[in-house]
Amino acid sequence: MRVAIDAMGGDDAPLVNVDGAIDAVEKQEDLEVILVGIEPVVRKHLDSRKYKGSRISIHHAPDVVKMDDPPSLAVRRKKDSSMRKAFDLVREGKADAVVSAGNSGAMMGMSLFLLGRAEGVDRPAFAALMPSYSKPFLLLDAGANVDCSPDNIIQFALMGNAYSRLVVGVDRPRVSLLSIGEEQMKGNVLIKESTKILLELGMNFTGNVEPKDAYMGVSDVIVCDGFVGNIFLKTSEGLAEFVMRLLKREMGRSVAAKMGYLFMRSVLKNVKKETAYEEYGGAPLLGIKGAVVVCHGRSTSKAIMNAIMIASEFASKNVHKAISKDIKMLVDKKDDKESTVAAG
Amino acid sequence: MRVAIDAMGGDDAPLVNVDGAIDAVEKQEDLEVILVGIEPVVRKHLDSRKYKGSRISIHHAPDVVKMDDPPSLAVRRKKDSSMRKAFDLVREGKADAVVSAGNSGAMMGMSLFLLGRAEGVDRPAFAALMPSYSKPFLLLDAGANVDCSPDNIIQFALMGNAYSRLVVGVDRPRVSLLSIGEEQMKGNVLIKESTKILLELGMNFTGNVEPKDAYMGVSDVIVCDGFVGNIFLKTSEGLAEFVMRLLKREMGRSVAAKMGYLFMRSVLKNVKKETAYEEYGGAPLLGIKGAVVVCHGRSTSKAIMNAIMIASEFASKNVHKAISKDIKMLVDKKDDKESTVAAG
Repeated sequence: MRVAIDAMGGDDAPLVNVDGAIDAVEKQEDLEVILVGIEPVVRKHLDSRKYKGSRISIHHAPDVVKMDDPPSLAVRRKKDSSMRKAFDLVREGKADAVVSAGNSGAMMGMSLFLLGRAEGVDRPAFAALMPSYSKPFLLLDAGANVDCSPDNIIQFALMGNAYSRLVVGVDRPRVSLLSIGEEQMKGNVLIKESTKILLELGMNFTGNVEPKDAYMGVSDVIVCDGFVGNIFLKTSEGLAEFVMRLLKREMGRSVAAKMGYLFMRSVLKNVKKETAYEEYGGAPLLGIKGAVVVCHGRSTSKAIMNAIMIASEFASKNVHKAISKDIKMLVDKKDDKESTVAAG
Repeated sequence: MRVAIDAMGGDDAPLVNVDGAIDAVEKQEDLEVILVGIEPVVRKHLDSRKYKGSRISIHHAPDVVKMDDPPSLAVRRKKDSSMRKAFDLVREGKADAVVSAGNSGAMMGMSLFLLGRAEGVDRPAFAALMPSYSKPFLLLDAGANVDCSPDNIIQFALMGNAYSRLVVGVDRPRVSLLSIGEEQMKGNVLIKESTKILLELGMNFTGNVEPKDAYMGVSDVIVCDGFVGNIFLKTSEGLAEFVMRLLKREMGRSVAAKMGYLFMRSVLKNVKKETAYEEYGGAPLLGIKGAVVVCHGRSTSKAIMNAIMIASEFASKNVHKAISKDIKMLVDKKDDKESTVAAG
């Protein structure tokens, strides 16, 4: 697989992007990476890393999409940007997937405009692979669609189910709705309406989960609207940061605590690593005719490496075709039911 | 002030309820507490604590509302329950406020049915006082109303503003909406519509805040619908629990980490205490004609003590009258504007 990465996207670009690319090709043999960005800048960093192989190439793009560019402007005007050129490579059949840690709104816009929706999909969604006490779970929509209908939620469930099965490798994913109680009656209208439809789908739908059970790992795919999904992500990040700040402040107050920290450093480091979802390798954009992975702006080289490997797997499994097939089955089933009702 | 506490409500009732009551009257001189519950059970615990004062009394109630009782059933059928009898005391003018760590749906139901809404209020809301890196903030609705209109959100803002000013003691509370970005365009329809109205209100409205900034303490009153508010609360709890579990697991793996823990124990304990919002003393139910405070089911005696003292302050400040006044001003303003438009 050939992955085009926007070498200029993200807070620490192009450094971590180049490092991540090198680490990815070293870890995975059949992988090629195309670094798309301002050639001399990217070249300089690649040379400084002394990469000698042939599986990384540079594709020049003179312009850059900024973090605060309005997505519509980025799509229409920034035709020479590294992000846009990466998409062009996929369109021209020269790459199989796109990765960027840049402006996520622009990534969504370019995905829709340049690759298009997978057949039958109404709204593509960001999926985030989240850590839990047992194994990671997929959360979607993580922030692409702030207002959703039950039909959108059902499609997110189908998309997450396909991705979990094909890319994460879960045999029969447990699919759930994120809510404020396990009981159906505790959700809002969106949850209640979506539950009714999901119960009839024949999917491995396990009902509603609360945030704390999500973190215990009771489900493989957790579905919600993009506003709630993003609140979930940002509350987790916010609380983790708050706790770390309090720890630091408290530690500054006693010598014993400082000594304790020295002993516990590796433990705290491990815990921090295990809870840092942005290290897991970015969010695949599901429901697009192609493999697109959007990384956190603060991605490290490890996050970029993971994202590139995930994008490669994502592309090789033709996830969007599986999604279109599942949606078609759902539509056919609905039509059958309606014609039965009409005939009866 | 006289506070009636449901002595049978909560996971550790009546133990922590009795302890909390004793601590509260010891801390606050002008306070009387009425323990409402099964008399011999409550008496036994009160006697075992050797309380000798005259400011705690017991009011017998033979029945108990269970955690899984449907609220409507609790309201209609459990007329001899400790929760119901506590409300009756307020209705009869024998108490000024009600506190319970029991079934929160039943608390809402009894508040509506027995005390009624404050004038002008459409939907009462739970407010939770949350910890932050600087000072605590009020989050509402914390879970009473899962589907809300912009008009509900505006009323929550007015109610939170009044409570923050009168009970929390913030001079001119900064009021914000919980969203997924500071920019208005990043919110959902509910946020955008509510923002338009709030900007015209002349309140100290500071726009949208993200969860991480909420935890930094950038706002005094943070408003959202009850579904999102409850997701915020439960995600915070869930992540904190997840991190503590990971810490314990990692600590079991090395002797150095265990030693570090001994040194850091007080630090971890302090951090846990500072982030435990349930210790802050429960959630006042705003928009009810009376002072009602609902505590977490897992409340400790400290949480109960705080809740009793908060309920006393809540009752003494006649918050519901201030809320009704603010809502009336808003309605009058709207009427004026509409008649101006009609005349022009």
